[in-house]
Amino acid sequence: MHQGRGEFAFIDWLRSKTPAHSRVALGPGDDAAVLQFPGPAECLITSDMLMEGTCFRLEEAGPRLVGRKAMSVNLSDIAAMAGRPLAAVVSVALPRAGGRALAEELYLGLREVADQFDTAIAGGDTNTWDGPLVIAVTILGEATPRGPVLRSGARVGDRLLVTGPLGGSILGKHLEFTPRVREATELHAVADVHAMIDISDGLAADVGHMCAESRCGARIWAQAIPISQDAHRIHDGRSPLEHALGDGEDFELVAAVSPADAERLVREQPITGIQLACIGECVEEGLWLEKNGHVGKLEPLGYAHPMD
Amino acid sequence: MHQGRGEFAFIDWLRSKTPAHSRVALGPGDDAAVLQFPGPAECLITSDMLMEGTCFRLEEAGPRLVGRKAMSVNLSDIAAMAGRPLAAVVSVALPRAGGRALAEELYLGLREVADQFDTAIAGGDTNTWDGPLVIAVTILGEATPRGPVLRSGARVGDRLLVTGPLGGSILGKHLEFTPRVREATELHAVADVHAMIDISDGLAADVGHMCAESRCGARIWAQAIPISQDAHRIHDGRSPLEHALGDGEDFELVAAVSPADAERLVREQPITGIQLACIGECVEEGLWLEKNGHVGKLEPLGYAHPMD
Repeated sequence: MHQGRGEFAFIDWLRSKTPAHSRVALGPGDDAAVLQFPGPAECLITSDMLMEGTCFRLEEAGPRLVGRKAMSVNLSDIAAMAGRPLAAVVSVALPRAGGRALAEELYLGLREVADQFDTAIAGGDTNTWDGPLVIAVTILGEATPRGPVLRSGARVGDRLLVTGPLGGSILGKHLEFTPRVREATELHAVADVHAMIDISDGLAADVGHMCAESRCGARIWAQAIPISQDAHRIHDGRSPLEHALGDGEDFELVAAVSPADAERLVREQPITGIQLACIGECVEEGLWLEKNGHVGKLEPLGYAHPMD
Repeated sequence: MHQGRGEFAFIDWLRSKTPAHSRVALGPGDDAAVLQFPGPAECLITSDMLMEGTCFRLEEAGPRLVGRKAMSVNLSDIAAMAGRPLAAVVSVALPRAGGRALAEELYLGLREVADQFDTAIAGGDTNTWDGPLVIAVTILGEATPRGPVLRSGARVGDRLLVTGPLGGSILGKHLEFTPRVREATELHAVADVHAMIDISDGLAADVGHMCAESRCGARIWAQAIPISQDAHRIHDGRSPLEHALGDGEDFELVAAVSPADAERLVREQPITGIQLACIGECVEEGLWLEKNGHVGKLEPLGYAHPMD
């Protein structure tokens, strides 16, 4: 019924590229998709929107990597709940010129990451307009039998673990990173994770978010923070430590666990592929940075969308 | 922890405006929301994105009505499956200047419609950028015990019903309409609806989509189409009938039912508030318009996003 061009031809192409999935009773092409859910479990849902020029530069990254990032940032939110991703829907606003080729590459990028994490792409919405590329992904997930890990469960005395080196993500990691889905569920299986968050706004800011929800404070030990190679490669007047504390989009996890669990996890390193580091502890109130024996106030550096 | 401005201050405001809901175990403010699902039923999911300048003119409509529309178009997709909406997530890209006031009005518009249809707003993503307003809503729903109504179930001989008058939606209905959620479930309760679609692209185009999925054709009876007052009010060289056939965003439903059910439903009019009209029948192939005893080819007029 459809001509070779336009929205519906693309949807035909997309359907031809979308493999059957056990959790998808009805995929793209109807008014809604139909998912088959494993059971009456708690359902996680998260949504993230990426806008060209703000979250990526299309000409630098290319559409394949933008698709990968759009899926990965959402998977990172599911990881932060220690959840298992199930299915995604994707809405896009494509620039009119070259929209079809862009849409195909975007979709292939989305699929690569979705396939890697056994996440079905069940449907979405394809639009064109005169503006730049906007892509919004929503992911459904399920909690592990232990329940979702919230931001609000950290307790005074808890230790803070991070799943990898921080800082300098602007040099590339913000586009191409591994959402810590596997690591989070493995961690939650071997320890009782009290609270967790992914580092999207910056370590200090996101520890601040977690503490605000948990009604506690935190003291970060500067010397214990694993600092990435990339944080050392940026010469903009800020130190590698400042980059590790303030740079957004590292997409590592910060987890609050008991002191005994922290000690054991750092010693045993039970999660393959990553090195857990203990970078601080939860205190009664305030955000503090301990550095060379001196404790100072930690500004919750990091990204917030300005709005007035 | 948050200052009075910026993204996080808005999220605080939003949380204060979001009432508790039995289906939402954890609402906005964490990495993902947590939903409590009624059971291991089939889960409907649909997503729609609206972009300023393409889907609405912000200065004409105002943010409240844009919020209402963004929620309503998604509810209309759930209606087209004869589903019951459960929960929504909302992602927005806001223009930087005046973004906070805009975000509040948008959210209040979203809430008005969500509340009317007992749909929880569970979370989302708030961004600002230099571009125009973009809003993407994803809704989860559940199918009735009879299962979801797909586009693909129409059979040759089925009659096509519509739920209201068509055409001229650009004069206002495209912004302010009632998604046919209640009407669809009531219809599916009193008759076996074989296939259904909501009219977003235009009657001819959407009947074409339904027929393509059902591998059949349709003959539309011109004289039987209920034509809206607004279709008569547009004087652009196209007839009211052409507007009824081609105009998008009417958001009425087209349902395929057996001839006996169609006859009974039109006679008994069991759905309060709307007048069901039988406007045609499913045939072996092709799209046809019967008018004054003459049958001609029906072009699948209507909207498709151009893409090259």
